Amino acid sequence: MAVSDFLKALQAIFPADRVFTDPVDCYAYAYDNSRNYHTPIAVVFPLNIEEVASVIKLCNTHKMPVVPRGRGTGTAGGSVPEQGGVVMSLERIDKIVSVDGDNRMATIQPGVLNQTLQDAVKKEGFFWPPDPSSAAYCSIGGNLATCAAGPHAVKYGVARDHVLGLQAVTGNGDIIRTGCYTSKGVVGYDLTRLLVGSEGTLAVICEATLKLTPLPKHTGGITAEFVDTESCAKAIAAIMAQPYTPSALEFLDNGALNLIRSRHPNLLPENAKAYLMIEVDGSSQEIAEATEAILQACQVKGLIEAKPAHDTKALWAARKALSPLLKDIAPKKINEDIAVPVSRLPELLTGLEKLAAQYQISNVNFGHAGNGNIHVNLLVNPDNADEMKRAYECLDEVFSLVLSLQGTLSGEHGVGMAKRPFVPREIDATTMALMKSLKLTFDPNNILNPGKLFP
Amino acid sequence: MAVSDFLKALQAIFPADRVFTDPVDCYAYAYDNSRNYHTPIAVVFPLNIEEVASVIKLCNTHKMPVVPRGRGTGTAGGSVPEQGGVVMSLERIDKIVSVDGDNRMATIQPGVLNQTLQDAVKKEGFFWPPDPSSAAYCSIGGNLATCAAGPHAVKYGVARDHVLGLQAVTGNGDIIRTGCYTSKGVVGYDLTRLLVGSEGTLAVICEATLKLTPLPKHTGGITAEFVDTESCAKAIAAIMAQPYTPSALEFLDNGALNLIRSRHPNLLPENAKAYLMIEVDGSSQEIAEATEAILQACQVKGLIEAKPAHDTKALWAARKALSPLLKDIAPKKINEDIAVPVSRLPELLTGLEKLAAQYQISNVNFGHAGNGNIHVNLLVNPDNADEMKRAYECLDEVFSLVLSLQGTLSGEHGVGMAKRPFVPREIDATTMALMKSLKLTFDPNNILNPGKLFP
Repeated sequence: MAVSDFLKALQAIFPADRVFTDPVDCYAYAYDNSRNYHTPIAVVFPLNIEEVASVIKLCNTHKMPVVPRGRGTGTAGGSVPEQGGVVMSLERIDKIVSVDGDNRMATIQPGVLNQTLQDAVKKEGFFWPPDPSSAAYCSIGGNLATCAAGPHAVKYGVARDHVLGLQAVTGNGDIIRTGCYTSKGVVGYDLTRLLVGSEGTLAVICEATLKLTPLPKHTGGITAEFVDTESCAKAIAAIMAQPYTPSALEFLDNGALNLIRSRHPNLLPENAKAYLMIEVDGSSQEIAEATEAILQACQVKGLIEAKPAHDTKALWAARKALSPLLKDIAPKKINEDIAVPVSRLPELLTGLEKLAAQYQISNVNFGHAGNGNIHVNLLVNPDNADEMKRAYECLDEVFSLVLSLQGTLSGEHGVGMAKRPFVPREIDATTMALMKSLKLTFDPNNILNPGKLFP
Repeated sequence: MAVSDFLKALQAIFPADRVFTDPVDCYAYAYDNSRNYHTPIAVVFPLNIEEVASVIKLCNTHKMPVVPRGRGTGTAGGSVPEQGGVVMSLERIDKIVSVDGDNRMATIQPGVLNQTLQDAVKKEGFFWPPDPSSAAYCSIGGNLATCAAGPHAVKYGVARDHVLGLQAVTGNGDIIRTGCYTSKGVVGYDLTRLLVGSEGTLAVICEATLKLTPLPKHTGGITAEFVDTESCAKAIAAIMAQPYTPSALEFLDNGALNLIRSRHPNLLPENAKAYLMIEVDGSSQEIAEATEAILQACQVKGLIEAKPAHDTKALWAARKALSPLLKDIAPKKINEDIAVPVSRLPELLTGLEKLAAQYQISNVNFGHAGNGNIHVNLLVNPDNADEMKRAYECLDEVFSLVLSLQGTLSGEHGVGMAKRPFVPREIDATTMALMKSLKLTFDPNNILNPGKLFP
């Protein structure tokens, strides 16, 4: 079938306002936050699971790639239509189906924005723990596809920990239902968590029943400043080795601090070279006890000051804006998302500094230190061939360091296109072959987001 | 190959003390706690993952069933060698490889008993939340294979929530490694949670890295007595609808209470027909606040008394002994493990009473009410054909009731052999066909615990 015939078949399913074929219209669906760009031949906007199934069946018949897309806020190229084909935007399947406070659950469609959900359930005394920086713009469908997380994961876990069941469409257009509506259930295989984090390569999530968490009663803040990264890393490990789990434990290195200083002159202390923003939550007694224990854990050689912080709103806003700020100072950043066991953070963070110095690459590191999850940003100029070469050599050594510390290449951003070449260094050949077979079990013609996740 | 040749090949892998072929020796490995019984042709005791792979490769070559087995404490027949073949006991792969308190994790082999792990990590201030009644006798490998839980799941979740990564052997003898050693990780598909709860049908777990949870600082108890089941069910729903999550919320019906009364004459109040045993944990303030909120939630019509209980040790011991006690009073029990959304418990529990009366079947119901997870026991005499017929008709209607309330057929025991015929009422045909394809992706010759989980 010629492409024009395929497009006609697509246009027979959708009215004109729900199928784009003009490249100008398609442009906004050709990229995500990874700065990769590939044009689809069409973008479609289904309104329900039956329409999703129709599109997938058509694409399956014609072996046409179909790339599910939330709001395109991913940083790894997961939703970029790399092999062309059809982008299936789920943004118009966006109803909150129900919020059931009595059973601590909500059923939502994939196009609901994370923040929209949070606002809806907050009224009933709940939140949904995954809280990526992009919460105001990203969709729950995308959060599930990438197993998203954020600062609160250190205490509350990640997307896979907060989903009960799914409705989804596989690569041959079959509608499946996974999981259950109860907080416990063991009938059949756990397809729910197999789909969560599979980046749209196994099935397209069309409805999700999420587990809600009661809002903490109170929240407290602590900040800690250090003379260098190493002392700060030791404090992080000490904080996580004591029993009070902070509800957020964010690390900022000197580069990240300078970036914030440039925009918010009086927000941060002048002499700090590494900084922790810590949140604790619970009862007032729990907060008092946790604060005391955490301040104690911060007493490492190299601490400048650790103290309770009562108004941390401006600080958290600045932290949230770090990623966009980085774009302003560097023409390009190589953005990584590594994680190591938290006790290995001193080795990781000092190792990163050494590698950056050795390869003469500016870098900024920050992130979810309580999970050992650091966003490593190598700031580069794509027009400088020598710098780019050094940056990729440096990156290679960063991954070697991470894996030598029993870490993982991606804590929360996912593999997508960006980390694909490095996956064989983390996943052995036998396990990867099994994963590829699983992919074909769900998607025999390899049409769902083809080429992603694996080299 | 004749069976005798197969056995010779098996005996070439293992020394005589690690392969049983005499039916007398094999007897202890022919059944589990479901009272199903099928004789294997051999029982083997591998000592490491390479030996596990050797056995599976041999069995795969000869299309011989191989049934992995922990300690055989399951209640659904999951480890019974129903189709004969080889039982692979993992009880001698039983080392605690490491306890890493700094990273809140422990790496263990599958034969480690749940209680052995708890004792080892308690010294460092941790516990592993899954706490089945059989904790003293059951293996972690079995806990993972069934996605085990217990009273504390209401606050802390189930086995799948507390495992980071696995080493396992698939049905063609391939050694795979899943997950990671970090508290966050999204590289590749989540095979970890696919294997957890798969009852040994996809791969044999040979090592697991578990997530540990800090021990709560304090623990408090509450008991509540009610004039009937309905009022008690309403209190359960009210307790779970307020924000303080109890660390255990166990329900006992009148049958269960009478059973305990018969053994412990002065432990329980005389007039209660339904009873809640509630545990709260955390800081002393949290316990005080949670206790107040829960006592308030218990104020339903039909409450006799709700009060803080300071010494609940005897009561918890009695609760733990309920399952064995049941065996003493009835020649056979049909033991179910249903779960419904907790707000539907009033409908479920009153419905169960009506069905038992209608079919004239003695029944005893108790369990993890905070998860809506009720152990329904129909007490029957297998020699009474009429009673057995009525019991199975009643059971059929119990399942219909559960599914009409958006529930699941098994909250924690698993499907095994026992619940297999009913699975198609919960899982639709399309989803089940996909699950069966997944099984063959891991185990192309269908040798790993064949016939379990699906009809």
